[in-house]
Amino acid sequence: MKLTSYLLVSCLLASFGSYASDVTFERIDNARSQEPHNWLTYNGSYLSQRHSPLDQITPDNVADLELQWVLQNRVFGAWQSNPIVLDGIMYLTQRPNDVIALDPMTGRVFWIYQHNPDARYQVCCGANNRGVAVLGDKVFTGTLDGRLLALDRTNGERIWDVEVGDVTRAYSITMAPLAIKDKVLVGVGGGEFGIRGYVVAYDADTGEEAWKFYTIPGPGEPGHDTWEGDDWKHGGAPVWITGSFDADLNLVYWGVGNPGPDWNAEQRPGDNLYSDSVIALDVDTGELKWHFQFTPNDPYDYDAVQVPVLVDRPWKGEDRKLMLWANRNGYFYVLDRTNGEFLLGKPFVKVNWSSGLDENGRPIVTTQPAGQPTWPGNQGGTNWYPPSYSPRTDLFYFHAWENYATIYAPLEQEYTPGEAFLGGGFTVKTPVHGAPGIGIGRTTPINNWTSEVGYGSLKALDPDTGDPAWTFDHFDVSDAGMLTTATNLLFTGGREGYFYALDAETGEMLWKASLGGQIVMAPVTFAVDGVQYVTVISGNAMSTFALRGESL
Amino acid sequence: MKLTSYLLVSCLLASFGSYASDVTFERIDNARSQEPHNWLTYNGSYLSQRHSPLDQITPDNVADLELQWVLQNRVFGAWQSNPIVLDGIMYLTQRPNDVIALDPMTGRVFWIYQHNPDARYQVCCGANNRGVAVLGDKVFTGTLDGRLLALDRTNGERIWDVEVGDVTRAYSITMAPLAIKDKVLVGVGGGEFGIRGYVVAYDADTGEEAWKFYTIPGPGEPGHDTWEGDDWKHGGAPVWITGSFDADLNLVYWGVGNPGPDWNAEQRPGDNLYSDSVIALDVDTGELKWHFQFTPNDPYDYDAVQVPVLVDRPWKGEDRKLMLWANRNGYFYVLDRTNGEFLLGKPFVKVNWSSGLDENGRPIVTTQPAGQPTWPGNQGGTNWYPPSYSPRTDLFYFHAWENYATIYAPLEQEYTPGEAFLGGGFTVKTPVHGAPGIGIGRTTPINNWTSEVGYGSLKALDPDTGDPAWTFDHFDVSDAGMLTTATNLLFTGGREGYFYALDAETGEMLWKASLGGQIVMAPVTFAVDGVQYVTVISGNAMSTFALRGESL
Repeated sequence: MKLTSYLLVSCLLASFGSYASDVTFERIDNARSQEPHNWLTYNGSYLSQRHSPLDQITPDNVADLELQWVLQNRVFGAWQSNPIVLDGIMYLTQRPNDVIALDPMTGRVFWIYQHNPDARYQVCCGANNRGVAVLGDKVFTGTLDGRLLALDRTNGERIWDVEVGDVTRAYSITMAPLAIKDKVLVGVGGGEFGIRGYVVAYDADTGEEAWKFYTIPGPGEPGHDTWEGDDWKHGGAPVWITGSFDADLNLVYWGVGNPGPDWNAEQRPGDNLYSDSVIALDVDTGELKWHFQFTPNDPYDYDAVQVPVLVDRPWKGEDRKLMLWANRNGYFYVLDRTNGEFLLGKPFVKVNWSSGLDENGRPIVTTQPAGQPTWPGNQGGTNWYPPSYSPRTDLFYFHAWENYATIYAPLEQEYTPGEAFLGGGFTVKTPVHGAPGIGIGRTTPINNWTSEVGYGSLKALDPDTGDPAWTFDHFDVSDAGMLTTATNLLFTGGREGYFYALDAETGEMLWKASLGGQIVMAPVTFAVDGVQYVTVISGNAMSTFALRGESL
Repeated sequence: MKLTSYLLVSCLLASFGSYASDVTFERIDNARSQEPHNWLTYNGSYLSQRHSPLDQITPDNVADLELQWVLQNRVFGAWQSNPIVLDGIMYLTQRPNDVIALDPMTGRVFWIYQHNPDARYQVCCGANNRGVAVLGDKVFTGTLDGRLLALDRTNGERIWDVEVGDVTRAYSITMAPLAIKDKVLVGVGGGEFGIRGYVVAYDADTGEEAWKFYTIPGPGEPGHDTWEGDDWKHGGAPVWITGSFDADLNLVYWGVGNPGPDWNAEQRPGDNLYSDSVIALDVDTGELKWHFQFTPNDPYDYDAVQVPVLVDRPWKGEDRKLMLWANRNGYFYVLDRTNGEFLLGKPFVKVNWSSGLDENGRPIVTTQPAGQPTWPGNQGGTNWYPPSYSPRTDLFYFHAWENYATIYAPLEQEYTPGEAFLGGGFTVKTPVHGAPGIGIGRTTPINNWTSEVGYGSLKALDPDTGDPAWTFDHFDVSDAGMLTTATNLLFTGGREGYFYALDAETGEMLWKASLGGQIVMAPVTFAVDGVQYVTVISGNAMSTFALRGESL
């Protein structure tokens, strides 16, 4: 008892000792090289590779991982928060809109800030909150009712609170904010409710708005002519996943969601910029530097809200600043992130909505006969769950879904503020569910779900070709994000509730834990007092592991 | 991969191979000595000692316990199911009224039977279902809407389904049924809604009612004169916790809940038999053999729904068939279970509602001045959570709560079928909550909750004296039940979400796991293929452990 108490007190002191140190922009920018033990921003670094330099856990000892603690969510539902770890404190969110600070060695909660969202809030797809940002002495969180809050990270007290979007028009925030320099950036959700999307930057100290970039250009702005009439006023193009940042280029990159109404592309003729695009903004001014649209005039809900993964590597013999992107529309893209130049595009799942991409990366659209399936279906070839790029293996890891949608029923729909603006409906075919846990590592199709119909798999793509170096097939599809480490471990999970470590070179499964609930968000790794931890949310529980004998 | 698949298939075959063998009454009656690897009835045996002869996990190796799998509940809320383990299959319930059969080595679900209770059901204290009974080829479960179901245990198909109580009068079943000989016995909840309680036995094959014993005697029956007028018709006395059975005496014992209306004892003058009593019934006929009332004319909600723990041991030099009982009213009792003779009664928490017990065990009631606290409060000195008796240590283990209630406001209330029948209200003072995990093993009071005000503790009582051999103090109170093993391990948990193993002789904490949710039901241990497992529900998750290196 005494030993335990002593250690706990020591850890508290150690934590609070370093707790006072400010999280500067420089610290976040250099986090991967200078402080690998922390996880300071949503994707681990501004480059969003979700690759950790930590090396205590290796393929040889990963089977010695041992459960350290579990935290259970206070509200039922698919918990998707990405934890931030800063000098021995973990910050995360839980449903509906709490921020929690806790001891990442024990799970003991230091404080909880509870935001009760305005009861009028509307979200299409669950009361999600994917985490916080930290900067200076503050923690930032978005809310379901469209607000951005700054909390004192030592005690959870609210410092400022601004309205980002009008809750009565169904603006919401489900992403983790992104803190860059002296600003906090956030985008808005509401694409299924006819919002006009934007990214907005606030002064981190005061909450004062610094700039705002509308993802649908207004009258007189370039790209406005990709919309007809008043369509631009309620054309969706939400931004609901955290972006990436290149400090050298001073550009922040955001994936933009689908245009609205979702299912009736004929009602909104034109390319509908910047829906289904990646946009590159000057982080100081919000000025658009370039864009690349993956899916013009999208009728399939192919949100481009994937994480922009920034990689510096050779391209055809020349060092290039690249952006790797497995898109919901079924194509894997390589872009030059200095100017948006299209370098490669290749399908990673069955694609029939287009017959290919032209030299500029624009899809050559085909039209499926009525009642015939479109591949991928509206669930997409992949979705928002964070991928990983490992500079050691030079592979890009993500979860792909084979699926199709057969019935699109476009309906002419008039926009009404705050009401769903979908323009029709659909049915989608996804793999059959089975008993939990069966089929991990399955290599042949089962039941009536044939390879023709498809299923989910983890793909490790070679960026040079877009071809998989290997795949890891799932029984079900998987919504889980990725984490790679310096020891060539790849941590991810699946809908069956298994959390597992694969060999990042070969895809061989090295270890697994059965955690009882769907794994959605990516795992995160960090170290405290010389011990490496890996943590993952499964269903309603966050479970944290360390090597046996290393931890408290 | 291949090894894993092969093993999984082997286990399935092994499981289904033994699956066919019938669960006879004799097997359940001899379960502890003949098949220690199974857990065949709610309390592990008809004697309800919750003591396992398994010995693979010991004080020396308990720190090597390793998480095997987690199962998460599909409906949020305090999950209280007690698993049954039968030849490599686990049967348990989850909210609101599912029965699950799964592989206890991996957590993989074989089948789920989903009962959707009649929307009119009412329960005072949560949509609980504490588990199933098995007999022959069937699994039995009670339902929130007052039904008893028999399922085919090989596939979960419903074989029969009977109404045990009228859902429109708020009869409900939250307990695990008890299967004895050729019958399935169950009691009814609804004490807060003015039911008239009973225990009822059904033919296990057909669902035909065999006998019914009303816990409130009707006109002309002995004990009827402990009620006035029509009070007996809606006097509560529910039975909502599984009883115990002595095969030699052919007696089944049940704890009976409080009389109604709960808070207005003056409205129901008399002893109100058999509320707050233990009743001993002939299992073949339902005939009452004896009763012992702990709290006559109870104004404090002192349900006597604890588990009757049956122990054969010397009493003052003579071998006796004893019953040990830590009651919600704050007294620990030793009774002779052949005839209900009172042998010992001693307070285990602060008690001021009575100044002691007379020679027959009847409380000498004191009346607290208005506004003055009554100890224990209506949360009781303990409650329904299962205790354990270890024949090795000869100690009786349970969780005790120090608490008081200060305001009772009796109201004259007329009974209306199907409506709450409480007769007033109360406030209760329980220990302050703190950060999860702080204070395990705490030995001195903290904050403003002094020892005068009280807190929760695990007590290991010497049955001869009712004095504790040791206590294990909690920071909070604990609702967790107990499990002891042949190696002198005691498994239990607390509200902080810690699951821990203590030395059953000394109370020393040997191991703990932080599982993130309140532990309520007792842990259970079992073995499959020579590997001992221990499983516990914490919050919304069931976690199963085995020694590192022993399991799959």
